[in-house]
Amino acid sequence: MSERVIKVGLCGFGVVGQGVFNYLRSRQDLLSDRIGARLEVSRIAVRDTKKKRDFDYDESMLTTDPLSIATDPEVDVVCELMGGTGVALDVSIAALEAGKILVTANKALLCDHGEAVFAAAKRGGGQLFFEASVAGGIPVIKALKDSLVVNRFSSIYGILNGTSNYILTRMTNEGATYQEILTEAKALGYAEADESLDVDGIDAAHKAVVLAYLAHGRWVPFKDLLVEGVSEVTQDDIQFAKDNGYAVKLLAVIDVAHASGKLYISILPTLVSKKTSLGSVDGVFNAVSIHGDVVGETVYIGPGAGRDATASSVIADIVDGAKLLVNGGAETFVDPAPRGGDAIELAEPEEIESRYYVRLQVLDKPGVMAEVASLLASHKVSLASVTQKEVGEGAESATLIVTTHMTNEKAILDSVKSLAESPSVTAKPFCMPISGIEK
Amino acid sequence: MSERVIKVGLCGFGVVGQGVFNYLRSRQDLLSDRIGARLEVSRIAVRDTKKKRDFDYDESMLTTDPLSIATDPEVDVVCELMGGTGVALDVSIAALEAGKILVTANKALLCDHGEAVFAAAKRGGGQLFFEASVAGGIPVIKALKDSLVVNRFSSIYGILNGTSNYILTRMTNEGATYQEILTEAKALGYAEADESLDVDGIDAAHKAVVLAYLAHGRWVPFKDLLVEGVSEVTQDDIQFAKDNGYAVKLLAVIDVAHASGKLYISILPTLVSKKTSLGSVDGVFNAVSIHGDVVGETVYIGPGAGRDATASSVIADIVDGAKLLVNGGAETFVDPAPRGGDAIELAEPEEIESRYYVRLQVLDKPGVMAEVASLLASHKVSLASVTQKEVGEGAESATLIVTTHMTNEKAILDSVKSLAESPSVTAKPFCMPISGIEK
Repeated sequence: MSERVIKVGLCGFGVVGQGVFNYLRSRQDLLSDRIGARLEVSRIAVRDTKKKRDFDYDESMLTTDPLSIATDPEVDVVCELMGGTGVALDVSIAALEAGKILVTANKALLCDHGEAVFAAAKRGGGQLFFEASVAGGIPVIKALKDSLVVNRFSSIYGILNGTSNYILTRMTNEGATYQEILTEAKALGYAEADESLDVDGIDAAHKAVVLAYLAHGRWVPFKDLLVEGVSEVTQDDIQFAKDNGYAVKLLAVIDVAHASGKLYISILPTLVSKKTSLGSVDGVFNAVSIHGDVVGETVYIGPGAGRDATASSVIADIVDGAKLLVNGGAETFVDPAPRGGDAIELAEPEEIESRYYVRLQVLDKPGVMAEVASLLASHKVSLASVTQKEVGEGAESATLIVTTHMTNEKAILDSVKSLAESPSVTAKPFCMPISGIEK
Repeated sequence: MSERVIKVGLCGFGVVGQGVFNYLRSRQDLLSDRIGARLEVSRIAVRDTKKKRDFDYDESMLTTDPLSIATDPEVDVVCELMGGTGVALDVSIAALEAGKILVTANKALLCDHGEAVFAAAKRGGGQLFFEASVAGGIPVIKALKDSLVVNRFSSIYGILNGTSNYILTRMTNEGATYQEILTEAKALGYAEADESLDVDGIDAAHKAVVLAYLAHGRWVPFKDLLVEGVSEVTQDDIQFAKDNGYAVKLLAVIDVAHASGKLYISILPTLVSKKTSLGSVDGVFNAVSIHGDVVGETVYIGPGAGRDATASSVIADIVDGAKLLVNGGAETFVDPAPRGGDAIELAEPEEIESRYYVRLQVLDKPGVMAEVASLLASHKVSLASVTQKEVGEGAESATLIVTTHMTNEKAILDSVKSLAESPSVTAKPFCMPISGIEK
């Protein structure tokens, strides 16, 4: 009996695409056993068909037109591994409208065009898999979609950008500045030439939007997220964290406010207790902590990027899609998000409660501490601790670090704005939440 | 259009069974959306039909004969939540032979009769789901089966028994003895009246056998595992761990020896570096670290037991099974383990390499240290460190702690045996591996 063949088209043949190609070939038997059919890469879309690559493949598979793969009736599974939100969007919509299995690692696409992409799947009966779009090799999408299916998700915390976490970890271990570590990270290939997507929190925000959709059924527009990166973190912050049992992490928070039931998403440098699972996730690793109302907290840690880690997730998705083709169920797309998400409101800054850390550069003169304290008090922000390191005689300014009791985001943002305008404050204040995660 | 109804039979209506029943009812709409059919508990097997329970259900569903559920043509999904390896085996085999979906949380059953249960699924075309059998609410079975499908697994480390981890954590935090904490844990309900399954490592061993099957395709007989529990751990060991950056954990190891490719499984108290993810998993939490050759290391942490956490996994399995019934694919059972497992040999003690910790109670007299050292040397075991706390004048014995460089299990077991026979050693030596996990 001849085994059924399922044809896979790769759109994008960069690092991840080549990883997927390699393992689909070298592990073909293992995967066939599980699917009951054989996976075969039949077409590959590349930018340059002449470019030399490190391994053998049939050059007749190559095309420079990814859309032709998405609409090719011979292709069963389309892997969109090009990135970006231009052609990638056209390819994704076309594949889904043609009723194909689409596997994508593209978080920017889902963040910006998730609604359109999901609509195309529903319209065309295509199936959509995107495990590799969040946290690389960690199966956190499947956890939310399938393993925790009976849960509602009161909060999700994530370390979703490996580059930022790598820089913060090295700053913590080595005492070097952000700029020094970034320069080295670029040289080592741990940061892109244009690092802004990573270190400004944009990449993490894309991923948080995807997680939030899965958990709550609403595509939150990027502009409604509070997003700050790690570039303003200094050794003062790192040292404060160390001294007080915290680590500085670029933390994505997808939370439902207790009182109002409203949703909020932020990506901010955050003080995370070292006693928590996330507080000790270092280096390029990613981690996601999911609070489900039935299961409690589960935490997932692993490589958030890299050729093979991402390929591992892409191939898991290809296999899941192929099983639907073999067994049945590939014709109708079932949205994995809960219904009713459109009705979820976003929380206002007044409704978002946290403790905060504020670092100020202030004039070293009498009365400044009193001024800072009364300014915070005027916004009803109550101080939990104050630290000012001894400065040498004649220094003009001093670093003042305060932490607050529970307050809300509006109060702290207003406070920081007022502080920035004070003549006693000599540089832009830096502020970050102190996470309430306990486990 | 009337929605299809999928009928669920619960065999066992204890803590977990009641949790499953409750959430299947209260989250019925959420689950229906995902499945495209409605789940309905239609029959429940209990020991005592007259027992009062905390919530409403139709008493006509009750039976004292679980086998009648397993063979009932009206029941689509059978949940075996009775435990034990007697009736539970009959129920499981009967359900699978009748081509039903079987969901089980029973690790002892899978450990002892996995081969028979899987054979019944293949024979009858039944489908077998067992997420809740290992690590409660943590989706580690699905990770191995599906998310990491392209990987081979060189090593898996697990903290798989919450009770043992709870006791070790409290011993660490409070400085109390094993016996003191155990007594309190029983009073608080964190340990069973008969604690032996948990603290002797048997429960963790059952789970390790299940993980090993999934990873390697071989059912390793329980008798071939090296299993020791936590009852001999003392404050000397806990204190040594603290002083040297370790935690004592009851660690399950499922490893493939580098040189020989042979498999070994052990459950032993183990010194685990506090810098690793597993080293800081405390209390009743479970954790599993999986090394896949494609993805690298992924770690899963969460509640390993409890009504709702276990129900969360059982319901995820019910939903997965129900999807097969709705979409297709329920007729043929596909074994999720890799083929060829029968050919994997088990490693001999000589082939299992590690560093070790040995605690000895020795006579406080000249020459004893030399005797211990030369005895170890005679087994080619090389010392890495020696610690003997100062004892008061006139004390008859002293506690001597040594750690070794890399050696093998045979050498250390032989050494410990020789040490136990030495007249200078006044109590049974205690030995545990020092884990090589680095992340």
